[in-house]
Amino acid sequence: MTKRGFDKYEERYAERTGVMRSSAMRDLMSLTARPEVISLAGGLPATDSFPQDLFDRINAEISKEKRALSLQYGPTEGFDFLKEDIAEVMAAEGTEIDPAHVLVTTGGQQAIDLVTKTFVNPGDVVLAEGPSYAGALTTFSTYQTEVIHLPVDEHGLLLDEMDVILDRLEAEGRWPKFIYVVPNFSNPGGMTLPLDRRERLVETARERDLLIVEDNPYGLLRFEEKPLPTMYSLDTEENVVYLGSFSKIISPGIRSGWLVAPPPIYQKVVFGKQATDLCSSSYNQLFVHGFISSGEWREYVDRLRDIYRSRRDAMLEVLEQEFPAGSTWTKPVGGFFVWATLPGGLDTGDLLVKAVEENVAFVRGDAFYADGQGTSSMRLSFSAVPEEKIQEGIRRLGRVAQDQLDLYRAMGL
Amino acid sequence: MTKRGFDKYEERYAERTGVMRSSAMRDLMSLTARPEVISLAGGLPATDSFPQDLFDRINAEISKEKRALSLQYGPTEGFDFLKEDIAEVMAAEGTEIDPAHVLVTTGGQQAIDLVTKTFVNPGDVVLAEGPSYAGALTTFSTYQTEVIHLPVDEHGLLLDEMDVILDRLEAEGRWPKFIYVVPNFSNPGGMTLPLDRRERLVETARERDLLIVEDNPYGLLRFEEKPLPTMYSLDTEENVVYLGSFSKIISPGIRSGWLVAPPPIYQKVVFGKQATDLCSSSYNQLFVHGFISSGEWREYVDRLRDIYRSRRDAMLEVLEQEFPAGSTWTKPVGGFFVWATLPGGLDTGDLLVKAVEENVAFVRGDAFYADGQGTSSMRLSFSAVPEEKIQEGIRRLGRVAQDQLDLYRAMGL
Repeated sequence: MTKRGFDKYEERYAERTGVMRSSAMRDLMSLTARPEVISLAGGLPATDSFPQDLFDRINAEISKEKRALSLQYGPTEGFDFLKEDIAEVMAAEGTEIDPAHVLVTTGGQQAIDLVTKTFVNPGDVVLAEGPSYAGALTTFSTYQTEVIHLPVDEHGLLLDEMDVILDRLEAEGRWPKFIYVVPNFSNPGGMTLPLDRRERLVETARERDLLIVEDNPYGLLRFEEKPLPTMYSLDTEENVVYLGSFSKIISPGIRSGWLVAPPPIYQKVVFGKQATDLCSSSYNQLFVHGFISSGEWREYVDRLRDIYRSRRDAMLEVLEQEFPAGSTWTKPVGGFFVWATLPGGLDTGDLLVKAVEENVAFVRGDAFYADGQGTSSMRLSFSAVPEEKIQEGIRRLGRVAQDQLDLYRAMGL
Repeated sequence: MTKRGFDKYEERYAERTGVMRSSAMRDLMSLTARPEVISLAGGLPATDSFPQDLFDRINAEISKEKRALSLQYGPTEGFDFLKEDIAEVMAAEGTEIDPAHVLVTTGGQQAIDLVTKTFVNPGDVVLAEGPSYAGALTTFSTYQTEVIHLPVDEHGLLLDEMDVILDRLEAEGRWPKFIYVVPNFSNPGGMTLPLDRRERLVETARERDLLIVEDNPYGLLRFEEKPLPTMYSLDTEENVVYLGSFSKIISPGIRSGWLVAPPPIYQKVVFGKQATDLCSSSYNQLFVHGFISSGEWREYVDRLRDIYRSRRDAMLEVLEQEFPAGSTWTKPVGGFFVWATLPGGLDTGDLLVKAVEENVAFVRGDAFYADGQGTSSMRLSFSAVPEEKIQEGIRRLGRVAQDQLDLYRAMGL
């Protein structure tokens, strides 16, 4: 294809989508499909634990009473009954909402896409934790966003450092369109933002008139202690858009998520949704509704918590035993991920090549930055792999990392 | 909300999304939900005709053998088995494709969105039939596209007129990013582009190095004669992206569509898909696969054809009897829609208000133009309403239109 039209598109699009990131992630996804590989890469939920009898009951009810509805177009905003269910699910984390402010989306990823589409013009600035969810960074790049990463410690965002960046932007006359934050057991960091930082972040948003995009797909998968208030619940000034997802507590295969937005933003995001896919699947919305209204969802989420807690415990235990001295990692109180950083300037891109030869995979740290940081870090996912395999995988990884470190030292690096 | 950040968003976004169109359409959708209204407005498929036993068999098979898969993330491109099914469905219209060039999308609307996202920067020109699918116009507006409408007659695009517009754009140094065309029983026109025009359009694309976006959601719902070759099948130079949909032959509620793109375009559109919703619902893909691989889909599509053909016949017959002298309308050989134009400069926006008082609804013509044309036209959908109701609806509509015309004349307009 050498024609003038397509050449133009090609250039422009490569700039726009961060092609390299996407193809690297796709390669990894193909890898994880090889059965001999222990994949600590993909953030896959344990969907094999979904009970067959519940699956069958939900479908039987849809078939009997809602078949034509399940197969028909639905409202762009989502079905009212599902909005009520979502209010119930959010209340379980202590957040009270008005179901009228809920937009049902085609998975949590679409919620990120719609908020970005609504607010961002090419060249606009968005702030995000560093590291941040790679899928959000990909979305931001398709709207030609400039992402500025905010520094974190093991508890997440550092607010003093954020203030410095905000001051600098203000001095430059630049206005961040929003701050994208995953406050609970973040992807990839596994960090949880403490209450005082949540309060201060909401206060900063109020004072500086900023929008916070709070993405909370993992919140209900907390392994210990009580849930912390969402920033949406702390906000009194319509400064927070909340993003939720059923992917981690029911299934990502039914692509069901949501956002809760203050009325002035809500209508705009609905227009964007209509232009993107008209409405989310009616069948899938009915499936989620069947699950939530069965009342069995709390028990199921408890079971998932137990599964993931054991897997996290296994991973943390074996990291302690098997990772090279000088390595650090986060200790998540929920979710799917541990973020580990290796000593000696070790490059996890190089390490991944070696690791795959040993049939173990992870995601390299720089995939979670828009600016090339994170080269000595890695995301280790414990969600989809049984304990023994986690232990074997981390053992192999520790060995490869130690070999690599020994090699670096031998070469005087 | 009076804060500086949001004010800025508001202005920009209103300009970007064509807010008025969207809210007008949403009002209409609420209207169609009132049971006493005969709605010839929405393009809703007859989903109540989907057989319960087939629905149950498909779900039972998913439950037994593919439950964990149906609930898990799938590949961004879509499952290979579904790509094969799509090749089978397209072959039924005489188009041979390579399944590797298929991207499974979340409904046909997402296919339009992804192509637009891939190619269009703010201010770019896109060409579309006038009238054109309102949902595509909404999508184009969210990317700040300038839509230039191409004139049509009762058979669709007028190629001489298109050449004049292309010459003018070329003289201005402007380059249309693509030509969006619905060649079969178009929405809203009900027009079908003849073979010689298809050939000439593909030839023009080749000579002028243009991209054609061929949107064919209705193609299999042809009531008479043989299918015409798609432009995708006539193209030898990678100038056509083909968009398909299962919404009209299975269900819009499962949000399943696809696009077929030449390799240089394919990868770019896949990146856009990943950033938009990661992947389409695995469950929904398995449902479509169950339907297609059952072998019963051809019989079901035959049945749908019979249903829609009878409804079209009913509408055309009663239009002849009941619409005011001087009215014109298209005679679709398939699909869902008749496009009617009233005499005497009658404004169908005004007419709609009166019609709704008589409990009958349609879509006003200017919803299908980006530039305010179409004010004397209307889209009449025969897809979702039984024959007697179509006849009663058109009767009421004819009466209201005649009253309005009499009033115009009495007022000397």
